[in-house]
Amino acid sequence: MAGSVFGNFFRVTTFGESHGAAIGCVIDGCPAGLHLSEEDIQKYLDRRKPGQSDFTTKRKEADRVEILSGVFEKKTEGTPIALLIRNEDQHSKDYSDLKDKFRPGHADYGFFEKFGFRDYRGGGRSSGRETAARVAAGAVAAKLLDEFGIEVHAYTKAIGPVEALKNDFDECQKNPLYMPDHEAYKKASEYLEVCMQDKDSAGGVVECVATGVPAGLGDPVFDKLDARLAYAIVSIGAVKGFEIGDGCKAAKASGSENNDAFFMENGRVYKKTNHSGGVLGGISDGSDIILRAYIKPTPSIAQPQSTVTDAGDDATIEIKGRHDPVIVPRAVVVVETMTALVLADALLSNQASRTDRIEL
Amino acid sequence: MAGSVFGNFFRVTTFGESHGAAIGCVIDGCPAGLHLSEEDIQKYLDRRKPGQSDFTTKRKEADRVEILSGVFEKKTEGTPIALLIRNEDQHSKDYSDLKDKFRPGHADYGFFEKFGFRDYRGGGRSSGRETAARVAAGAVAAKLLDEFGIEVHAYTKAIGPVEALKNDFDECQKNPLYMPDHEAYKKASEYLEVCMQDKDSAGGVVECVATGVPAGLGDPVFDKLDARLAYAIVSIGAVKGFEIGDGCKAAKASGSENNDAFFMENGRVYKKTNHSGGVLGGISDGSDIILRAYIKPTPSIAQPQSTVTDAGDDATIEIKGRHDPVIVPRAVVVVETMTALVLADALLSNQASRTDRIEL
Amino acid sequence: MAGSVFGNFFRVTTFGESHGAAIGCVIDGCPAGLHLSEEDIQKYLDRRKPGQSDFTTKRKEADRVEILSGVFEKKTEGTPIALLIRNEDQHSKDYSDLKDKFRPGHADYGFFEKFGFRDYRGGGRSSGRETAARVAAGAVAAKLLDEFGIEVHAYTKAIGPVEALKNDFDECQKNPLYMPDHEAYKKASEYLEVCMQDKDSAGGVVECVATGVPAGLGDPVFDKLDARLAYAIVSIGAVKGFEIGDGCKAAKASGSENNDAFFMENGRVYKKTNHSGGVLGGISDGSDIILRAYIKPTPSIAQPQSTVTDAGDDATIEIKGRHDPVIVPRAVVVVETMTALVLADALLSNQASRTDRIEL
Amino acid sequence: MAGSVFGNFFRVTTFGESHGAAIGCVIDGCPAGLHLSEEDIQKYLDRRKPGQSDFTTKRKEADRVEILSGVFEKKTEGTPIALLIRNEDQHSKDYSDLKDKFRPGHADYGFFEKFGFRDYRGGGRSSGRETAARVAAGAVAAKLLDEFGIEVHAYTKAIGPVEALKNDFDECQKNPLYMPDHEAYKKASEYLEVCMQDKDSAGGVVECVATGVPAGLGDPVFDKLDARLAYAIVSIGAVKGFEIGDGCKAAKASGSENNDAFFMENGRVYKKTNHSGGVLGGISDGSDIILRAYIKPTPSIAQPQSTVTDAGDDATIEIKGRHDPVIVPRAVVVVETMTALVLADALLSNQASRTDRIEL
Repeated sequence: MAGSVFGNFFRVTTFGESHGAAIGCVIDGCPAGLHLSEEDIQKYLDRRKPGQSDFTTKRKEADRVEILSGVFEKKTEGTPIALLIRNEDQHSKDYSDLKDKFRPGHADYGFFEKFGFRDYRGGGRSSGRETAARVAAGAVAAKLLDEFGIEVHAYTKAIGPVEALKNDFDECQKNPLYMPDHEAYKKASEYLEVCMQDKDSAGGVVECVATGVPAGLGDPVFDKLDARLAYAIVSIGAVKGFEIGDGCKAAKASGSENNDAFFMENGRVYKKTNHSGGVLGGISDGSDIILRAYIKPTPSIAQPQSTVTDAGDDATIEIKGRHDPVIVPRAVVVVETMTALVLADALLSNQASRTDRIEL
Repeated sequence: MAGSVFGNFFRVTTFGESHGAAIGCVIDGCPAGLHLSEEDIQKYLDRRKPGQSDFTTKRKEADRVEILSGVFEKKTEGTPIALLIRNEDQHSKDYSDLKDKFRPGHADYGFFEKFGFRDYRGGGRSSGRETAARVAAGAVAAKLLDEFGIEVHAYTKAIGPVEALKNDFDECQKNPLYMPDHEAYKKASEYLEVCMQDKDSAGGVVECVATGVPAGLGDPVFDKLDARLAYAIVSIGAVKGFEIGDGCKAAKASGSENNDAFFMENGRVYKKTNHSGGVLGGISDGSDIILRAYIKPTPSIAQPQSTVTDAGDDATIEIKGRHDPVIVPRAVVVVETMTALVLADALLSNQASRTDRIEL
Repeated sequence: MAGSVFGNFFRVTTFGESHGAAIGCVIDGCPAGLHLSEEDIQKYLDRRKPGQSDFTTKRKEADRVEILSGVFEKKTEGTPIALLIRNEDQHSKDYSDLKDKFRPGHADYGFFEKFGFRDYRGGGRSSGRETAARVAAGAVAAKLLDEFGIEVHAYTKAIGPVEALKNDFDECQKNPLYMPDHEAYKKASEYLEVCMQDKDSAGGVVECVATGVPAGLGDPVFDKLDARLAYAIVSIGAVKGFEIGDGCKAAKASGSENNDAFFMENGRVYKKTNHSGGVLGGISDGSDIILRAYIKPTPSIAQPQSTVTDAGDDATIEIKGRHDPVIVPRAVVVVETMTALVLADALLSNQASRTDRIEL
Repeated sequence: MAGSVFGNFFRVTTFGESHGAAIGCVIDGCPAGLHLSEEDIQKYLDRRKPGQSDFTTKRKEADRVEILSGVFEKKTEGTPIALLIRNEDQHSKDYSDLKDKFRPGHADYGFFEKFGFRDYRGGGRSSGRETAARVAAGAVAAKLLDEFGIEVHAYTKAIGPVEALKNDFDECQKNPLYMPDHEAYKKASEYLEVCMQDKDSAGGVVECVATGVPAGLGDPVFDKLDARLAYAIVSIGAVKGFEIGDGCKAAKASGSENNDAFFMENGRVYKKTNHSGGVLGGISDGSDIILRAYIKPTPSIAQPQSTVTDAGDDATIEIKGRHDPVIVPRAVVVVETMTALVLADALLSNQASRTDRIEL
């Protein structure tokens, strides 16, 4: 088991290297009867596609998805759904001079130690390109959740030191950084311009909100809903921190501040506040689920850096090629779809949790 | 699968409610030949045992572990290791008036929705008591890692707003808050005294360092080493944030600041800095692994709180009983052993990663 | 993963060696709300208990089960159910002279090669005693199935060359060989008497029937219902052959003979014959599920046998101690409960197979 | 989890319907460093390709495999290996009149009940065509095993009532039925001619031998090596019986006949006989592994058969189209590769079984 499988019920296996023939995934466990088309998936892939602004790699990939199996007469059959995305603009020459040097901030050295050799063509399996396969799978999960009124939305909360102070969802769709605050977007753009001039890069924060999640999803011990979300989110390359609800801030609060009081309204349980971020004791509490992914700056920078070679010599490296000065805007849809994968898995898992809900 | 199983190779299943007959675990996959005694496990359990200072619950539990299987002539047999801890001081009467009210900040309401009813005796499966079973399992993982020179140490980084500014490991062993800074310990104690007078509670931060971890552990995609650590750490009740290396701070840094330069020394690869916290692209990079768990304040407080009943009525609750005003000191060993579980699992997983290391 | 976990949804982990402190299991994934008592489990354990006839080992084990967790107010909580059976009559001295010789027909040699040493006290983990833990788990599965009208019954189809020609279920309960044919029982008893005089042993066949299984359980590819049954049944020590429906005989039939014609009656689909044994293409077809386990003769015999020592010398061994001349009658309840585990797992798995059956 | 994943370490997920765009698989967990080309896989696929004799379907499929990922510079990278086979000769019109009738002996009815609708185009996911994906995966497993001196060979032991009495491996390669006995081949051909004239079909037996398997593979309890083999083999459509070693016959033997005596030769442990078929107590014993799959006659026959429709009416069905009168010869390579998958998985699993074999 080399760790390319995610989920227990809605189970996704991804495959593919950045410079191989193709990337893709197989979903085993999507229930039968869901209406699904390539277009449903494509619209998610288009959101992470490179080349859409000045702040993303110039690599050109159409990222057209093909459904190979599992869908018949426009409905899922209950059988594995295989999704294929051919690599087109592989451009291997950019990478040939990196063949024997380990790039700082990348997986190169660990890969070499683990596997004994490595695919030096632009990250191979460790490339951010792998996330396209997750997005494709997560688009199916999102479609499934949507059937049950559960929606997941992510956006850029911060770029480097510039934080969005408003939560204007419409604005998100209008700027290429997916920031819900037009002023912050403008400042962040300026910040990125300076980064690029300096041959440097930036990180940032993605926030994600899931609405319509019923109380009762998740498990009490290891498979707490927030634990599964942390697993999913930190498995996205470059994520160095994860928060649910108030997150790190909660560590400084007192219990009386942090607890969310319950109350009844129209026969339903509500909470007066949502410090918990929608999860208590690992189980959803009926409020919105709110999480954040803290993303480090892109490690590929054009400045000269000290490193070593696979032969064990000190060396200097300058990473040319086509790299995003910031990956945060493209990570938005990845955070969103990974969240959808966790929620879909938890929803299916829950079907077998009570004898009074089991049907022959 | 109700989420009480953790790990793929070193696989742990825990069981037990806080007020049932016993708690415990079964480890399937511990290699044969490891020297193991009850004492090896007991010393870890003693570190999380309640009743050791003014800042922990008065519940008295000897927490004596019994090895039921898997060890013969003081060595592991390669078969499942079952560990049993009897509950002794269950004291159910304290909880009887909570029978039909959902405690704010607890899993009660989600549990009720998920399972249709719940064990109202002090949290049942969601109780912090469950972590004793994890600690027992993790003690075995730590023993295994120790055979290969890998050591894991955790300590209290902060209590509420009081942060440890020194990293004095000896000091950790001397104060009941496990803080590596005597001055901070004194301030934190004062802070907690005030919390207790106010019938309130505090949170804090646990930091954990693993040394001796070779480069090459972890997997490139979903089972990134840091993703598995995030999963493990956030699965500890009350953890609301997780960081690896520079964590959330990395989101504000530039690439040139955040990248760790490699260099050679005595034929080995080293890094000049360790912003990564020992993991790059999901694979260990040979540096110390450093992570942090952000823990919310204990939700059980004696102040009156607004809540609802399982019959759907508004209500007020005052939680009496014996509760820790802060769980951070007792969570230290839980974070440490969960980290050990992840590393042991990754170490075993790695044995099958290269054909040149496979033996008949 | 050392292979002591079975099932995906109704997931059982067993533990324990024949001569250790205890054996037992943990069930993770039993739905909440099932009425369950120790007595429900004990009655299954009593059926495999040794010492009930002349044809079973004289080892005395009360095999009292204790429910350690997962049951509250006589109902399952949806949390792990841990079941404990203490070993009582371990009698280790019987085995001490087997310490360095590998018993023919046993796992001793393979164990030694796999783990580097072994628990020589009577089979250790490989002992038939481990099946008590499965029976305990399977009793819970049977209770769950019973709620949905699914019943599983096994009986002895043959002892050595003596086959039951009738299927008289009442008779099963009356003779210690659990044969549904009184004449066959008498012949089998005589056959076993001769075996015992000859210091030899016998094998036989267990047949198992599950009624009330709805059409639609199982999966189309690897997790075919019959594949999971084969896995479960062959995992019982000493089983060398597995059949579903007509089994091996089907290989000689023609398609027109072997196909079961469908017809309608009272608005339900029926089959005119049941050559399939209730499973078609890996999915239950609504007929009774019928399977058979072919069990080899007990390998522990008192005759002198040629073998080798763990030091690599030729040797002769005579196995004294207390051994069943035939394990078939005690295996009946093991086959029955393993079948129940597979069906319970398939039933839970099926809850998430169709969008039109998913509930929030 | 819809059951399309097999293996724990060498983990295979297959996908694809018989009349969809493609079939294929993803292998997660193949170690890095194995030399692998499309040709290595193609030669296995060619052995199950239809249209190679009078006794197989006339459907024409080139079954060309494409490696999409996981191989770089002709070596496996340790990352997922995705294999793609496009469907070419789908010929859907043959199946259109089967749209609403359930074919006897097929999964149609169970599928309909499970998923609520079904892909009526020739079996969909339940088609024998799915086995091409397994064969592709198993070819990689066989290549891996070959590196360690483990070879797996299967052949046709019987067609209907005609059994091979010799074991002439060369002969297997020469006749289209893969029978190791020329006389038996001739009789079987005549038998099949009659079947075809009668618009009927035949079953048979595949036997499989693995050589070079070291002692110590497999696990003592649920994941016994023979249990995993039974699971793998019975998961092949149409297999109704499974035997290891003497199989069903062992049930009639006495212990003194069935036990295999050990002896030493040239410092190695051997067995005088191999009634066990190479597995004792679930762990390989160093002898050849021998198993048999009993395969039912092809259910698709052109004779009129009674059945029902999905609307619940009685009906008559005559299955036209292109069907194998016997699938046994094409199943030979499927049995062989499924066996290879189990052995490769057990080999990788074993790398973590002893502390003295673990490497950093």
